[in-house]
Amino acid sequence: MTKIHITKIQIEQIEKQKRVHLINSLCGFKSVTLVGTVDMKGNENLAIFSSLFHIGANPPLIGFVFRPSPPERDSLRNILETRFYTINHINESIYKQAHQTSARYDPSISEFDVTNLKSEYKNDFIAPYVSESNIQLGIEFKEKVPISANNTIMIIGEIVQIYVPENCLHDDGFIDLEKANTITCSGLDSYHKTIQLDRLSYAKPDKEITSLL
Amino acid sequence: MTKIHITKIQIEQIEKQKRVHLINSLCGFKSVTLVGTVDMKGNENLAIFSSLFHIGANPPLIGFVFRPSPPERDSLRNILETRFYTINHINESIYKQAHQTSARYDPSISEFDVTNLKSEYKNDFIAPYVSESNIQLGIEFKEKVPISANNTIMIIGEIVQIYVPENCLHDDGFIDLEKANTITCSGLDSYHKTIQLDRLSYAKPDKEITSLL
Repeated sequence: MTKIHITKIQIEQIEKQKRVHLINSLCGFKSVTLVGTVDMKGNENLAIFSSLFHIGANPPLIGFVFRPSPPERDSLRNILETRFYTINHINESIYKQAHQTSARYDPSISEFDVTNLKSEYKNDFIAPYVSESNIQLGIEFKEKVPISANNTIMIIGEIVQIYVPENCLHDDGFIDLEKANTITCSGLDSYHKTIQLDRLSYAKPDKEITSLL
Repeated sequence: MTKIHITKIQIEQIEKQKRVHLINSLCGFKSVTLVGTVDMKGNENLAIFSSLFHIGANPPLIGFVFRPSPPERDSLRNILETRFYTINHINESIYKQAHQTSARYDPSISEFDVTNLKSEYKNDFIAPYVSESNIQLGIEFKEKVPISANNTIMIIGEIVQIYVPENCLHDDGFIDLEKANTITCSGLDSYHKTIQLDRLSYAKPDKEITSLL
């Protein structure tokens, strides 16, 4: 494939919205989920995030990034206020509603209401899950990490509740995300389903990797 | 789908390797790339990472997480020593070789050599790109952020060089990753290609979203 070369100076000169599309695309395919929160008065909030990443399995930690405030980020305020939030996988049936949560609604408006996604409360967890989501996580806030390079804030939480379809969970702990209809995204606005190529064995220096399927 | 509910106490009791598979799966589909580095003596290193995430577009920042040392992380040491590294998208032709770089080789061994991936040096950038990769990024180290919750280290860098196939770059800045054969991963060892569902218009409170395709 013939490649274009774009240098630092050229990146800086690209028109703002075009640069946002370009840089967001460069990260590759991303995890895309809905983060559910509620404030102390019971006002719900639901927001789509594509910056989720795995930090560790013991304890089970997951992180994501908030862009700078202002404007005030309802989800961030709620997380710091209540210390709990949910992460809900997005599937093919709800990705358009999920995308709609990125619109700038007034804090008094619940994105559950305007998108017709159903909030679900269970097992005494304070934050709302997305009922239509097949993989739901209850998260406890652990750490707020400021990123000085661009004034964003990273939020780190511990996975304390897991809801996963019975028939998607393998004996070795692997979850078949395709069977759960979880999708992925690229750039700012592109959604994709997946086709598994393979599962590969644990890599060792002097051993050929094999298929686990 | 009938869901299993796994609580915090149950998560803690899961056997270690099974928990690693489970928690890594819960993040959803992930960006998976090869990070190329070199030390001051010219010893190359290549390592697969699936914790890459977008931090911001202006300046264009990208982050990923290193597990705790020891063992010593060759890539981390090289990044801190030379301040530059590359991020290379993985495609269907090289994902098995990419997976093999996760084996624990001696620091003196170049993963380029053992996997037969070709290192490529261009435009005076000190770190090696992966020649077989269709989307290649040259990164300048910016910030090292310790995550106290589990002693991992987040490395943040600025994208200063971009190589992207000419026919994959849209006028609005979006990159067609499928056309570039970029793949995604889930869990520790599962690789997937994608099928685009749609690109959706910018969401606004009182406007229906439409397809951009």
